[in-house]
Amino acid sequence: MMCEPYRIEGRGLPERVTVYEVGPRDGLQNEAAVVPVEVKAEFVARLAAAGHRVIETTSFVHPRWVPQLADASELLDRVERVPGVRYPVLVPNERGLDRALEHGVEEIAIFASATETFANRNLNRTLESQFAMFEPVVARALGNGLRVRAYVSMCFGDPWEGPTPLAQVVSVGRGLLDLGCYELSLGDTIGVGTPGHVAALIGAFGGPERLAVHFHDTYGQALSNTLTALREGVTVVDASTGGIGGCPYAESATGNLATEDLVWMLHGLGVETGLDLPSLVETSTWLAERLGRPSPSRVVQALGTAPDVKE
Amino acid sequence: MMCEPYRIEGRGLPERVTVYEVGPRDGLQNEAAVVPVEVKAEFVARLAAAGHRVIETTSFVHPRWVPQLADASELLDRVERVPGVRYPVLVPNERGLDRALEHGVEEIAIFASATETFANRNLNRTLESQFAMFEPVVARALGNGLRVRAYVSMCFGDPWEGPTPLAQVVSVGRGLLDLGCYELSLGDTIGVGTPGHVAALIGAFGGPERLAVHFHDTYGQALSNTLTALREGVTVVDASTGGIGGCPYAESATGNLATEDLVWMLHGLGVETGLDLPSLVETSTWLAERLGRPSPSRVVQALGTAPDVKE
Repeated sequence: MMCEPYRIEGRGLPERVTVYEVGPRDGLQNEAAVVPVEVKAEFVARLAAAGHRVIETTSFVHPRWVPQLADASELLDRVERVPGVRYPVLVPNERGLDRALEHGVEEIAIFASATETFANRNLNRTLESQFAMFEPVVARALGNGLRVRAYVSMCFGDPWEGPTPLAQVVSVGRGLLDLGCYELSLGDTIGVGTPGHVAALIGAFGGPERLAVHFHDTYGQALSNTLTALREGVTVVDASTGGIGGCPYAESATGNLATEDLVWMLHGLGVETGLDLPSLVETSTWLAERLGRPSPSRVVQALGTAPDVKE
Repeated sequence: MMCEPYRIEGRGLPERVTVYEVGPRDGLQNEAAVVPVEVKAEFVARLAAAGHRVIETTSFVHPRWVPQLADASELLDRVERVPGVRYPVLVPNERGLDRALEHGVEEIAIFASATETFANRNLNRTLESQFAMFEPVVARALGNGLRVRAYVSMCFGDPWEGPTPLAQVVSVGRGLLDLGCYELSLGDTIGVGTPGHVAALIGAFGGPERLAVHFHDTYGQALSNTLTALREGVTVVDASTGGIGGCPYAESATGNLATEDLVWMLHGLGVETGLDLPSLVETSTWLAERLGRPSPSRVVQALGTAPDVKE
């Protein structure tokens, strides 16, 4: 049972929010189970049928680093693209861009770091030299008519350096926008941020323009942080259907903000998403059986039928 | 790693929040496992040691209805009361009040319904006639120098009638305040509410004065709803250490807002609570082993050592 919508009066909540679905990429990339390609293709098709208009489908990262997404080419060949739906693909470098172009991808995402240590560990670059790596990727993508989105990871803190200075996040983000990216997805990769920090970061950028938010629910803060971002004017929110993407070694640990929990809040606030919640819950229940673990989404737990999971 | 606090600028966040801890009563009442009385006494002692200044300890409901709390008398005899800490007890009727008085209880809570059907099912009263039941309990409690808190349950919706009209909640709440209760705890017993609904309900009361909030995380909304209540001026929040109190038959289902997840947000917002988060996490990890299931709190999952739970 869902109540009729109530807006928060006199505040800046948008009429409509775009949910940028990251389950097939950021979710499945961080699950222990390697999912068969036909299951992935069905997952993407179900997400489009549930109303998603942007589905980050896979990544052209080297299979050595992310074996879960080694089937990126085959998956793109299998996905039947629905008109009006965007299927962006994460691209780490020029070789990845070549493969994206070969598969007729129309939008890519690049993955930058807001901290020195993570730039070094994840990209083998310094905070500054990561731009030299992204520049030719973005330039060639734009030259081929693609749109480019930029993730900024570790925007709130990282496990080595502690809290990330706001000015440092803004500097990295502005650099990426200057390269020609159409949007920044500000990521709380380790989930430590809280609402005042979110508002401060958006303020440090001078406002919500061209900003999306990407929260992980490691400390239970993802939805509160999202609400705060919406009240600061953000209209694009990353989420993963079923909340998949937790650390594969901790059964109950959680990953991305669950799309269903976000949609429950948005619809309750009278914010349009174009998404059909029962279809999403059904999809997450179906996927949980294939992943062999229950969905961490509270809404899926409440509304879904218990998956046939053996542990 | 926790970031330095950031407040939300220019808004009505309080400097300090009182966390009204309901774990020993509302939490354990809804767990499948019946916890030995010495474990409960240690749980209460640990909560006080972690900084809690109000701990709802048990209920004098008839053991036929809540066998989990049949040891209320023995527990109260065992709890060593720390000066400055309040230990309220839920009291359903005059017989319960007699027992509370026998045990030197200084504060009680009564449990009312905002909907007709739940008043009928839970109290065997109509929405209107529940006041006749509470009136002598509150009058005698006040006459004996006790403080009385009132829960209003099903404030957002119930499973039978759907959404609860705001005016109906206000009418029930005002009636309880008129009896002499010092505070109303507005409960979303089935967890369906969303932030705009929370703001609207507080507005319908004319503001946050004498209001506390009590959210269940069934649909993942508890913390966002709490944040909204805080921004509307509420300064008392009910929560359960470890987030215990889920439906005992669904392993992963969740109950009350977890104190740890709330405290992570509050401390991140620079709001004082007087609570020590590591002590709370340690207590929840300890309790999870005794309950035989992992804590649903995200913070406990992230920071606690994995409990030795057999499934």
